[in-house]
Amino acid sequence: MLVVQKFGGTSVGSVERIREVARRCIATQKAGNDVVVIVSAMSGETNRLLGLAKQVNDDPPPEYERELDVIAATGEQVTVGLVSLAIQKAGGQAQSFLGSQVRIVTDSAFTRARIQSIDGQKIHDALKQGKIAVVAGFQGTDADGNITTLGRGGSDTSGVAIAAALKADVCEIYTDVDGVYTSDPNVVPSARKIDRISYEEMLELASLGAKVLQIRSVEFGMKYGVKIHVRSSFNNNEGTWVVPEEKQMESVLVSGVAADKNEAKVTLIGVPDKPGTAAKIFQPLSGASIVVDMIIQNISEAGRTDLTFTVPRADLKRTVELIRRALPDMAEQGIKTDDNIAKVSVVGVGMRSHAGVALRTFEILAEEGINILMISTSEIKISVVVEAKYAELAVRVLHDGFGLGKAPA
Amino acid sequence: MLVVQKFGGTSVGSVERIREVARRCIATQKAGNDVVVIVSAMSGETNRLLGLAKQVNDDPPPEYERELDVIAATGEQVTVGLVSLAIQKAGGQAQSFLGSQVRIVTDSAFTRARIQSIDGQKIHDALKQGKIAVVAGFQGTDADGNITTLGRGGSDTSGVAIAAALKADVCEIYTDVDGVYTSDPNVVPSARKIDRISYEEMLELASLGAKVLQIRSVEFGMKYGVKIHVRSSFNNNEGTWVVPEEKQMESVLVSGVAADKNEAKVTLIGVPDKPGTAAKIFQPLSGASIVVDMIIQNISEAGRTDLTFTVPRADLKRTVELIRRALPDMAEQGIKTDDNIAKVSVVGVGMRSHAGVALRTFEILAEEGINILMISTSEIKISVVVEAKYAELAVRVLHDGFGLGKAPA
Repeated sequence: MLVVQKFGGTSVGSVERIREVARRCIATQKAGNDVVVIVSAMSGETNRLLGLAKQVNDDPPPEYERELDVIAATGEQVTVGLVSLAIQKAGGQAQSFLGSQVRIVTDSAFTRARIQSIDGQKIHDALKQGKIAVVAGFQGTDADGNITTLGRGGSDTSGVAIAAALKADVCEIYTDVDGVYTSDPNVVPSARKIDRISYEEMLELASLGAKVLQIRSVEFGMKYGVKIHVRSSFNNNEGTWVVPEEKQMESVLVSGVAADKNEAKVTLIGVPDKPGTAAKIFQPLSGASIVVDMIIQNISEAGRTDLTFTVPRADLKRTVELIRRALPDMAEQGIKTDDNIAKVSVVGVGMRSHAGVALRTFEILAEEGINILMISTSEIKISVVVEAKYAELAVRVLHDGFGLGKAPA
Repeated sequence: MLVVQKFGGTSVGSVERIREVARRCIATQKAGNDVVVIVSAMSGETNRLLGLAKQVNDDPPPEYERELDVIAATGEQVTVGLVSLAIQKAGGQAQSFLGSQVRIVTDSAFTRARIQSIDGQKIHDALKQGKIAVVAGFQGTDADGNITTLGRGGSDTSGVAIAAALKADVCEIYTDVDGVYTSDPNVVPSARKIDRISYEEMLELASLGAKVLQIRSVEFGMKYGVKIHVRSSFNNNEGTWVVPEEKQMESVLVSGVAADKNEAKVTLIGVPDKPGTAAKIFQPLSGASIVVDMIIQNISEAGRTDLTFTVPRADLKRTVELIRRALPDMAEQGIKTDDNIAKVSVVGVGMRSHAGVALRTFEILAEEGINILMISTSEIKISVVVEAKYAELAVRVLHDGFGLGKAPA
């Protein structure tokens, strides 16, 4: 088997942890596998480096983001060297590779680049020589040879993308939890580790803040059919497999329940109900890279309508400013905001074939007296906005209401 | 003018010092020059990185020195990013370049690579756009794209080599002293900054431990005729110009006096005086990369001779072991060692055209009652070995005896 193993910052956060990674890689190789390791910067290192940059220049213009990438990419560069040395010390053979050396070619969007192609030849050569290939995550190179980085959490994407390019049998993502859970165990004591989950469900859960996997890495996995195994770097237990949808997954109505408290709600009262108004409102937000999540438009009355939508809480102030500018005739009191909300979502591919999940969701919340402020549904997800103070309660009652606490039949 | 400015670790050792470098580069550019900056790692950083590596693997085999270079090269990579950001912040324009991006091609001798070629095209492109080019010192890439480093002090060599490749008008080496002195000012209060010195003299002084310039950088300067200006990063004073030999330099008998206490003396008594003996002794030393400096063979008596030579003090123990192995018949007491010595040297191109400098050297030392243990001379240098305790005194009396304390006529 060809196994790609990705270790995050905590897993390589100290000399002792790096030795642990080396031992695990060698054990995997000794079990008869070819091993490619993707590593992040040692925990805290990326923040230290970008902190230095900020001290020197607290507000570099976009064209100087190139230099931020030059600085940030050194974090992973140090780790690949250290892990290679640790593997040698532990009795194995290793060779490090930088993004530019593997030819992980990205676009030129510095600090948030996207992978365009990967040339696996040098890695294959190293594997043929019996070496463990140690590849720097998070970084790549654009067509002109500039160093790029993939944005926070980009090492997950590096791992899955390299697994796809090498046609690896599995991409193991090592983390400090045992896998993906039906809900946040800190909120829901009965939360249970999920054994297998589809890419689609994982995408919905990842975007809801189940921080075990970066969204883009799941998208990559889905696109190229890479089997992802999320597991703990502290033990040898099976974790969660993120795989193509399987027949029996549909028998489970709901796979997970998650809450997201990073949104805020904006309501525009009495907006003219005529063609082009929505575009006028959402174009400047899109231009400012503000991601609008849920949008609800109420029934029109006398040519006027109410429009409610959610944006990331951090963008709320800017959103209001942009709307004031876009709709200068709007009365001051016509814009209402509420950042004291939470979005609670129920996710599962089983919804596709089973009616009534939405209804059951509303019933469960109603039984607890939790008022629903907004509703939005997709094929495999039902999201409701509730007052922030009800977030944990809503997650708990939905989790247990859908029987997630019990092992699947 | 095209000006190359090289800043060492102390000059970029803090955020404030980096800002200072940025201001100086911009001022040089505003004075009408094209500016290329070469920077070292922030002071202490290379030691920190290699310390981490040592914690992970305290004795990597030679083929893993590749990984040490991967790790060490990040020090300069961080600095080029920071300096570029600082230049932007201070109102200039800049672009950073790594060794691999400038195509500083070296051999594959990791941790001590030698530069083979430099492609200045990308730097010229950046200069044409009005940018200050900020290049990482100390690092290069071999023909296979592996990262290499040039060894300690390698940034000086990077600076001069890049100046040569770009046909720069001057390579300014910024340091924490005002230039090259006629002797160590800590030892000789009357030591005077030298305004102009030839490459040959600088080479002799550099190898004697006047630590302002790395030897290889001077060799590069000499080979390609790069004018080197050693000056302080703390002020705008003229420093010392290291240049091709000039006519009037010959009027100065002696340019500098230096002492080196890092040598030890080995005497082999009663060595068979026949062809092949010297080779038998020095071959194993050469094989072990031990640099033998001075060698003296006394007149032969009854087919036996005494052989005295110096080696770096750190290599003394290994030297004795190697000689015992090479000459197993040698009596225990036939090998005498003395690590309590100092080599004092008088350097100057004027010696070539003026007789009597050697004689005057001996006279000056004799007047102070300093016994000479060994003598060796080259075209522009006279070195004597004396007891270590006389080192400073010898330097002082020679310095003043040759009139170095006064400004040149």
